Amino acid sequence: MDIKIKTVITGEESFFGPGVYELLKGIEDTGSIQAASAEMRMSYTKCWRIIKRAERETGFAFLTRKKGGKDGGKSELTEEGRVFMQKYIAMDADIKAYADKTFKKYF
Amino acid sequence: MDIKIKTVITGEESFFGPGVYELLKGIEDTGSIQAASAEMRMSYTKCWRIIKRAERETGFAFLTRKKGGKDGGKSELTEEGRVFMQKYIAMDADIKAYADKTFKKYF
Repeated sequence: MDIKIKTVITGEESFFGPGVYELLKGIEDTGSIQAASAEMRMSYTKCWRIIKRAERETGFAFLTRKKGGKDGGKSELTEEGRVFMQKYIAMDADIKAYADKTFKKYF
Repeated sequence: MDIKIKTVITGEESFFGPGVYELLKGIEDTGSIQAASAEMRMSYTKCWRIIKRAERETGFAFLTRKKGGKDGGKSELTEEGRVFMQKYIAMDADIKAYADKTFKKYF
């Protein structure tokens, strides 16, 4: 037996869990919402809605869009977005390490 | 902002989280799988499958069934089932308390 933990940040509604993290990571890696959506087998519209919700709840933009030039249409993470992701993933790892230890204590 | 944690115990597959706990609690309270299923708006068959999976993964029975007499058909938790539930809910509370504290540290 083992333990599995899901960590979600909530505001007015739940808005930041492993799915949003993975999506933003995909956008960081590919520079494209389209490509990251496809990788996660989610519609572009759904991904966009997820990102918009996170931006509404936190009050800052996660993505910038560069227009024109050879990088036309490329999506990049904002600094604030990057910091939020780093805090989420560090906190998630922290809680999971504690959960593993706690599971062994109880079971 | 706040944090929400879901704690699930896994074996060959995930088999014990807040849903199974609530279902078993409902059976404990009502003495009836039928009544507990209805309360959770789940089909009797689905509930039965969930309980059978937990029994397969842990290797013990969560429920006894008393046949005949005035309590005919009543479902009760086994002692082992009750202990497992208590351990799960105590561990879950422990992890959630740590998660709340950790969230405040990171955010």
